[in-house]
Amino acid sequence: MKNVLVIGAGRSTTELIHYLLTKATEHDWHVKVADRDAELAARRVAGAERGSAVGLDVSDLGALHGLIKESDLVVSMLPAHMHAPVAEGCIHHRTHFVSASYVSPEVRSLQEAAERSDVTLLCEMGVDPGIDHMSAMERLDQLRSSDAKITRFETFTGGLVAPQSDDNPWRYKITWNSRNVVLAGQGGVRFKHHGRYKYIPYHKLFSRYEILEVPGYGKFEGYANRDSLKYRHHYGLFDVDTIYRGTLRRPGFCAAWDCLVQLGATDDGYQVEELDGMSYRQFINSYLRWDEAMSVELKVQAALRLEPNSETFERLVWLGLFEDRPIGLKTGTPAQVLQKLIEEKWQMGPDDKDMIVMLHEYDYELGGEKWKAQSSMVTLGRDSEHTAMAKTVGLAAAISAKLILTGVIDRRGILIPTSPHVYGPVLAELREHDIEFREQAQRV
Amino acid sequence: MKNVLVIGAGRSTTELIHYLLTKATEHDWHVKVADRDAELAARRVAGAERGSAVGLDVSDLGALHGLIKESDLVVSMLPAHMHAPVAEGCIHHRTHFVSASYVSPEVRSLQEAAERSDVTLLCEMGVDPGIDHMSAMERLDQLRSSDAKITRFETFTGGLVAPQSDDNPWRYKITWNSRNVVLAGQGGVRFKHHGRYKYIPYHKLFSRYEILEVPGYGKFEGYANRDSLKYRHHYGLFDVDTIYRGTLRRPGFCAAWDCLVQLGATDDGYQVEELDGMSYRQFINSYLRWDEAMSVELKVQAALRLEPNSETFERLVWLGLFEDRPIGLKTGTPAQVLQKLIEEKWQMGPDDKDMIVMLHEYDYELGGEKWKAQSSMVTLGRDSEHTAMAKTVGLAAAISAKLILTGVIDRRGILIPTSPHVYGPVLAELREHDIEFREQAQRV
Repeated sequence: MKNVLVIGAGRSTTELIHYLLTKATEHDWHVKVADRDAELAARRVAGAERGSAVGLDVSDLGALHGLIKESDLVVSMLPAHMHAPVAEGCIHHRTHFVSASYVSPEVRSLQEAAERSDVTLLCEMGVDPGIDHMSAMERLDQLRSSDAKITRFETFTGGLVAPQSDDNPWRYKITWNSRNVVLAGQGGVRFKHHGRYKYIPYHKLFSRYEILEVPGYGKFEGYANRDSLKYRHHYGLFDVDTIYRGTLRRPGFCAAWDCLVQLGATDDGYQVEELDGMSYRQFINSYLRWDEAMSVELKVQAALRLEPNSETFERLVWLGLFEDRPIGLKTGTPAQVLQKLIEEKWQMGPDDKDMIVMLHEYDYELGGEKWKAQSSMVTLGRDSEHTAMAKTVGLAAAISAKLILTGVIDRRGILIPTSPHVYGPVLAELREHDIEFREQAQRV
Repeated sequence: MKNVLVIGAGRSTTELIHYLLTKATEHDWHVKVADRDAELAARRVAGAERGSAVGLDVSDLGALHGLIKESDLVVSMLPAHMHAPVAEGCIHHRTHFVSASYVSPEVRSLQEAAERSDVTLLCEMGVDPGIDHMSAMERLDQLRSSDAKITRFETFTGGLVAPQSDDNPWRYKITWNSRNVVLAGQGGVRFKHHGRYKYIPYHKLFSRYEILEVPGYGKFEGYANRDSLKYRHHYGLFDVDTIYRGTLRRPGFCAAWDCLVQLGATDDGYQVEELDGMSYRQFINSYLRWDEAMSVELKVQAALRLEPNSETFERLVWLGLFEDRPIGLKTGTPAQVLQKLIEEKWQMGPDDKDMIVMLHEYDYELGGEKWKAQSSMVTLGRDSEHTAMAKTVGLAAAISAKLILTGVIDRRGILIPTSPHVYGPVLAELREHDIEFREQAQRV
């Protein structure tokens, strides 16, 4: 019998744990779920015969090592910055490791030790990163094997609400991490466009989106996401003229969010003065010139050159920026104030469903002809528990865990899913779960 | 005989060293000047009988401590981040310490040790900070002693070119630290205006300047400088409705510099890709959308909504942003690219003179009447060696060093010059050197 340990039982783990428990008898596994909240872990296991739950404070290294030692594979679903001690424990006890997070510098430094211990550390195995890498590489490798020359590669992902729950003026709700929504794009972005390196500072990011269309799902806005250039390396696209990685939102979102960026209200670098008792209206007023004669609404319209009846201004009103009700934080940064507001206003209701949209757009030359292609994937959530986010992240991680335990994935060291022996079998099984891409290409 | 050690012999130290050497016989001092460049140190001493010069690498703690040990007072004219080991050495060897830099957290942490060693660490004793603190406190203390209620306090300083050298379209040259000019305002600013806390993000800073007038010197633009709120504490202005600290430039500067901020070209957070061989034109193009049909000039005009014949656009042209000549850096951040450009274009010529302008504007209520007052100081440089910057910084530091050595300043621990027993005698002697403020007040 093999022991699988899942660390973290948050909302993205429902499908992961369900998959592992479903396959446990067939593969002779025992699945243990560990979380700071032992009851939450037990709820995920739901009394399954081949499952068990345990409370774990991961800062208790003795307890952590005890659990890793008795396991053959660990799936770490902790927040991104908490993986390193788990990965170190896995190397020490020769236990394989899977995570859905980006390879951090700390984890990167474990490469040699992982190889020496004959251990696989499979990272970036969720949806974004994860399914994006796999689906991109599948297409790029196909094109390369047919001697196509790839000239453009752009890739976009969005965690959004499903069309049936798309019922507020921002066309957005929090389906994942609200803090990341507030901080998105801070630090600016870089990419390559028609052979030129391009940089966009944070304060211009949300006004430089592009419009994209996904068959069957209508229009989206795509804005650039951090450092697109590093994907040249991951995807072997050193000679490509255009490489761009973006985030999807529904039309109207970027212009309205840009208002908050322009005001300065997304800053996470300082504490708001005398926040205790402050209202959202007063908070927004602290980004506007003092003017006795003008309302906060008029000052926002003047500062951002917004028409009073514009949809953008109406989105700001709907969000509650002008409400004279207390924020309810004693201390905090501007970003934390906004996070509190959007967690209220963009909350998923009990009947709301989420949606993951992924889109690759790429150009290539083949046999003297030029082609434009698009590859898109949409996954809808079933309900507020079985979300599209939990399904895509969870199945990618769970399937790859199975493939490591069954010896199909047998490379050691730190991996991300960009080679065919990893993405091939994972994508094949994801298709069985209706996570699949729709292709279209046309000659230009 | 007392030994005075000056560490650092850069361009701001000419007047400092000259003052100390001039007073050396009268007070029985020996003045030693230490610099990484022993020849530069010797040139500053210029063979004076009571002076000597020595080469010193301040990272060589043994040599540093040797010099501090034999000194009664050290004036540290090193870059701001290098003072802490010198201050620590001074505490160890019971040697007094004077610097023109802001109190850093490292120096702040030495408070108790300094008191225990009966040593004075007098910091922020230059022009800005320095003369600003002293002149502000002199006025504020006067008003308070006459029972006036202060409702507004705004203070501005600028290191600029003298009117006779004011001969380029930016009306600006580098009279001090070019890197600080590029990075000015990054991180955003905060202040209080009419009883409201106000925050300005970096990308709005250079469009929210105000126009100020200094008698005899015409108009200036003032933009906010970092955290004005901490001056509430320094100046005892907790109840004031408006507190604001700013930097002065000549009219036209802010709108033109704002263009570089808007483009994103002042960022110091990443390395420019493939910088080696790049031209300034290509550099600017990396902040603009790709468009085959438009020149870089047209794209800048479109992105920033500038008229082609506007003075702002002409300033950008004059600065050389569109020149297709190599930058000449192999690697660097955007801020480093701009720093190189402005060091060329805004260089002080051999006959150029600089100018320090300081301005306090304040409102108060006295005996039922409301007053508006202004206090201004302008100091002009004599030539490129005897600059206004060197004179104001150097005399403030030198005079206070004398006052410590002669026992007039006898408080111990970390001081900044906000109490009358420090600013009183220093301002009195600065007046003898024609560094003095012009006052005006009117009832409103």
